[in-house]
Amino acid sequence: MSENIDNQTPPSGGRGAHVCLTPALLPLFNVEEYIVVVIDIFRATSSICYGIENGAEAIIPVSQVEECSAYREKGLDYLLAAERDGKVVDGFDFGNSPFSYTAEKVAGKTVVLTTTNGTHALHLSRAAKKIVIGSFLNLTALSTWLSAQNENVLLVCAGWKNNFNLEDTLFAGAVIDQLKSNDFELDDAAIAAYDLYQAGKHDINAYLKKTSHGERLKKLGIEKDIEFCLQVDVTTAIPVLDGERLVKQG
Amino acid sequence: MSENIDNQTPPSGGRGAHVCLTPALLPLFNVEEYIVVVIDIFRATSSICYGIENGAEAIIPVSQVEECSAYREKGLDYLLAAERDGKVVDGFDFGNSPFSYTAEKVAGKTVVLTTTNGTHALHLSRAAKKIVIGSFLNLTALSTWLSAQNENVLLVCAGWKNNFNLEDTLFAGAVIDQLKSNDFELDDAAIAAYDLYQAGKHDINAYLKKTSHGERLKKLGIEKDIEFCLQVDVTTAIPVLDGERLVKQG
Repeated sequence: MSENIDNQTPPSGGRGAHVCLTPALLPLFNVEEYIVVVIDIFRATSSICYGIENGAEAIIPVSQVEECSAYREKGLDYLLAAERDGKVVDGFDFGNSPFSYTAEKVAGKTVVLTTTNGTHALHLSRAAKKIVIGSFLNLTALSTWLSAQNENVLLVCAGWKNNFNLEDTLFAGAVIDQLKSNDFELDDAAIAAYDLYQAGKHDINAYLKKTSHGERLKKLGIEKDIEFCLQVDVTTAIPVLDGERLVKQG
Repeated sequence: MSENIDNQTPPSGGRGAHVCLTPALLPLFNVEEYIVVVIDIFRATSSICYGIENGAEAIIPVSQVEECSAYREKGLDYLLAAERDGKVVDGFDFGNSPFSYTAEKVAGKTVVLTTTNGTHALHLSRAAKKIVIGSFLNLTALSTWLSAQNENVLLVCAGWKNNFNLEDTLFAGAVIDQLKSNDFELDDAAIAAYDLYQAGKHDINAYLKKTSHGERLKKLGIEKDIEFCLQVDVTTAIPVLDGERLVKQG
């Protein structure tokens, strides 16, 4: 019976590669025993990977537009990114499209990014050994780095408003696909993510289009962003959390 | 961005078939808009389907062994089922193995069954339009009945201690597989469950053996129970919640 089985912890021998399917499930994990990878494919963690790759000094994720604007007073070097209903909020420098995170715009700058789901996942993971940021853009660089650490890995899907979503889960499965050869012990969610990635990997964009979420994203008019976020291995930087700032690892 | 997208509700037109991957995610659903199917394949809902099929008058699920024994004082006709660490608790009539739910043992009787995860899921779903019980044993009868109702369907995986598990999710996918032809709108979790079922359906027992959960269940010495619980369509009764009692639907 299920009730006789211990709660979710990494294996005592070897390393675990586990998947937390939504932030609502994070309290079930002993996060302090893991390196956590935060995943919010559309679009926060894709934009963060692209921005750090393009020389942003740091990216600070916040939940609320108001928190973001509070940074205005702290110095002119901050770029502020916030959007609502697909439009840049008045008085902000840009929105959440990865196309805003080019070297021309962000090199040498600190960007304050408004992202509800991503910030929520980061906040709940703060007791982790280390928190890094993943997206299809840095898939192989991230997976190679994770394999080289002698630590348990927890892939945290930011989801949307604590709900499960397929795009974050598919990416978790893509990481598991690369870690698998390194004898990580997988939990049920990691096995599921891996199998879903196998089902979708030949055309991830087409696979995700059949989801209701895909329909909704389409209505927001961000198809080009989606296509951009599904590019594999176009960056190598691994953003890591240092205090409240995401900076380039190593 | 995810934050611009509405929370999880059934579609305004048509019917939704949604999956709640663990009871921890139930607060995200408006359960009062659904018929809820509670799923705890190993072994609570399989035993319940088998017991109701075999003429049990009712099955009362409770969380704690102590609650179960409290029924002893209410009348001699109650059979009490409780086990810890794979063994029947002293003073109880039997444990949670489906093999205890034969007609010889349960016909005409009320059984009080101790099941932590199943009871938890039932309790959290109590505002639903109706709560029924699913397992591979009654898969087609259940799916046919669900299709004939003009209602949204929410498949609630009991999981283990609020964690995601593959066996409950695979069964949810098996139901989605049967509902799909009826124009139900699916959420991301339903699509995932369906695709996982496609990956595992040719040999569900073999598929589940690769999970860590499978390893743990094996250690509990209940392989025969597992094999029994993975039999498809050996029953047709649909247990439905009436007050605190599960009885035969219709």
